[in-house]
Amino acid sequence: MSFSPDCPLCIPDHDILLWQDDRLRVVRVDDPPYPGYLRVVWQRHVAEMTDIDALDRLHLMRAVFQIERLQRAILRPDKINLASLGNQVPHLHWHLIPRWRGDPCFPDAIWAPLRHDPARAGAWADARAALAPRVERLHRILAAHGPAADIPDTGA
Amino acid sequence: MSFSPDCPLCIPDHDILLWQDDRLRVVRVDDPPYPGYLRVVWQRHVAEMTDIDALDRLHLMRAVFQIERLQRAILRPDKINLASLGNQVPHLHWHLIPRWRGDPCFPDAIWAPLRHDPARAGAWADARAALAPRVERLHRILAAHGPAADIPDTGA
Repeated sequence: MSFSPDCPLCIPDHDILLWQDDRLRVVRVDDPPYPGYLRVVWQRHVAEMTDIDALDRLHLMRAVFQIERLQRAILRPDKINLASLGNQVPHLHWHLIPRWRGDPCFPDAIWAPLRHDPARAGAWADARAALAPRVERLHRILAAHGPAADIPDTGA
Repeated sequence: MSFSPDCPLCIPDHDILLWQDDRLRVVRVDDPPYPGYLRVVWQRHVAEMTDIDALDRLHLMRAVFQIERLQRAILRPDKINLASLGNQVPHLHWHLIPRWRGDPCFPDAIWAPLRHDPARAGAWADARAALAPRVERLHRILAAHGPAADIPDTGA
């Protein structure tokens, strides 16, 4: 397994692991404004999708889309954002970010400057609090069953 | 084919088409700071990757990764950024953005604020001019052969 001693994703101290197999891991990103934000990190230290072979790409993207399906079913966001950037940490990983019309950056990418709107921030704090049990549920399901988990009965 | 009359990607006036099949199209994004920036747009009006079926996802991602391979071979960027956001235009499309250490936002995402550094901007203008023939070549190859094009001999 390739490994780079200076890479933070090769020494995942800050990751909160939910699930892993021999090729990838699913981690929580507890970025306060973005409930349900997850990352899928390739275990090997490679930079690009085209640095891994077609079967590995299939395995990785299948996990990404299975998790998108769970995020949508459990969290009911207005949009899903998927991105593989890696400019700062060139170790292959995907950002899976549920987005809501009321979140602090919508409709911009989360990497755009935050919108400083006190009324919106207050409403979003309430919305986030209401989402917290569903985020916990998403984490619990992923930790127990991984990306291929059945979609649970999400109730009303 | 589903179609939404208010969606700019359903009426692609601003697209500069390079190649298409019945399911997707590859378009140039002539965003000046980012040479070789391309988008892959799903022809049908759907919002998310999990709104299309597994075979369509495979077709779309295969095109994305084939193009990444061409961007890397022809442009030799320092990094590739891939993203499916769609917050502003919820019609499924992928951004494929070659990145260089000297570009105006590196190592941030291109959606972050531009760095206003005159020395860097001057050096980047020179680098972009030097890249222009390779960008033309990428466009020509995609227009002639599509994402599955053989990787050309890129010389020294």
